[in-house]
Amino acid sequence: MALQFTSEQRLDDGVLERAFTLGEIPGILWTLGSAPAPLILLGHPGGLHQMYPRLAGRARHSAAEGFAAATIELPGSGERPRSAAAGRARADLRRALEAGEPVDDAIIDALILPLVEKAVPEWQTALDALLSLPEISGPVGYSGGVISIGIRLAVVEPRISAAVLFAGSFVPRAMFEEARQVTIPLHVLLQWDDEGNDRQAALDLFDAFGTREKTLHANLGGHTGVPQFAGDAAAQFFTRHLK
Amino acid sequence: MALQFTSEQRLDDGVLERAFTLGEIPGILWTLGSAPAPLILLGHPGGLHQMYPRLAGRARHSAAEGFAAATIELPGSGERPRSAAAGRARADLRRALEAGEPVDDAIIDALILPLVEKAVPEWQTALDALLSLPEISGPVGYSGGVISIGIRLAVVEPRISAAVLFAGSFVPRAMFEEARQVTIPLHVLLQWDDEGNDRQAALDLFDAFGTREKTLHANLGGHTGVPQFAGDAAAQFFTRHLK
Repeated sequence: MALQFTSEQRLDDGVLERAFTLGEIPGILWTLGSAPAPLILLGHPGGLHQMYPRLAGRARHSAAEGFAAATIELPGSGERPRSAAAGRARADLRRALEAGEPVDDAIIDALILPLVEKAVPEWQTALDALLSLPEISGPVGYSGGVISIGIRLAVVEPRISAAVLFAGSFVPRAMFEEARQVTIPLHVLLQWDDEGNDRQAALDLFDAFGTREKTLHANLGGHTGVPQFAGDAAAQFFTRHLK
Repeated sequence: MALQFTSEQRLDDGVLERAFTLGEIPGILWTLGSAPAPLILLGHPGGLHQMYPRLAGRARHSAAEGFAAATIELPGSGERPRSAAAGRARADLRRALEAGEPVDDAIIDALILPLVEKAVPEWQTALDALLSLPEISGPVGYSGGVISIGIRLAVVEPRISAAVLFAGSFVPRAMFEEARQVTIPLHVLLQWDDEGNDRQAALDLFDAFGTREKTLHANLGGHTGVPQFAGDAAAQFFTRHLK
């Protein structure tokens, strides 16, 4: 399946931003120049429109380091059709959090596992299309959350050579087993005071990753408070591994 | 008290290495050029001779980033007089570790607290002498272990502006309280598989630090396996805060 570009604009730092669709999935591609560049896939929690300022910031940061960047909408987010089951799981999660109760494994499984099942093949299809463009050469990195999507991609997609994973979402137990199978270099970001995140689970997950090169960067602050210097360190990680 | 330089050599990258004594305490100073430079105090577990290759490597790395670097011998290490109490505590520690028993708080207290009490004023005296040299201007950073010495220095010594602390030694309970009083920026290195280190205690200590800017970098590997890129990240931390 090929990308259909639907609009483009030149950002003031010279980055070319193009919206596209891949079948029914909307996405955005950022490139700087026409020489073939390595690619960073920008993960996010869903909702391209809402996430746009942060995604564009990360893409411009990547472009400044010589990387193309791309993202696609997640299943059930933005303009894409909602899943009734995911809606129920989200409502259950909200109830548990508001009641201050521990979040049941079954809720996390219902929320995350179908999302991973559906999203990962979509990212792979997007990768097929992106790598067929002359501006993109690979190698490819994955950056961001949903961390379970990043883990699955790292295991099943051999074209992904390195990943920056953001420990900011619930992780089903089954993903801990999958984490042991990851062998690519990992750089894990953890916000130490992330309200929506279980710190101990994030540390356990870091421990579980099977790769021989893994680094955890924990910084003070909440979910959206990743400091600028932590973004710089993640960019340096990709420069070490993708160039 | 002034430094007495006892020998000097020019390293092949142009760094001037001078051995000195400060009263009875031996030390080493590394400088590059004569323009006043900020200073990094290089902490270590004791034994300048044995630690020399690693200390010199860190000093040359620092010099390449525009920092002077200096270190002094710890009380009871190298050529300095041994303390009978510390010897007993070390023997108790060795027995506990060999027996696979949990290490009693009293052993850790006996090993570390008198060392901190004695070493910290010595580092402060060294700082007086170093800052009186024309080649050294400040600001000053502390880098390394013994982590309890770094914590105490960060609390009591206002001339230290930032610290890279290596979580690789036992930490007395009392130091957790002191950690809450640290307000300077911290960059904490943790080797995830450090045999001689309690990972959970290191994470608890990171949590306890009272400063608003703290970053934890955890890397795979044992005590001496800090990867090159982690050293680079620590250097960048000092560049952000001391320049």
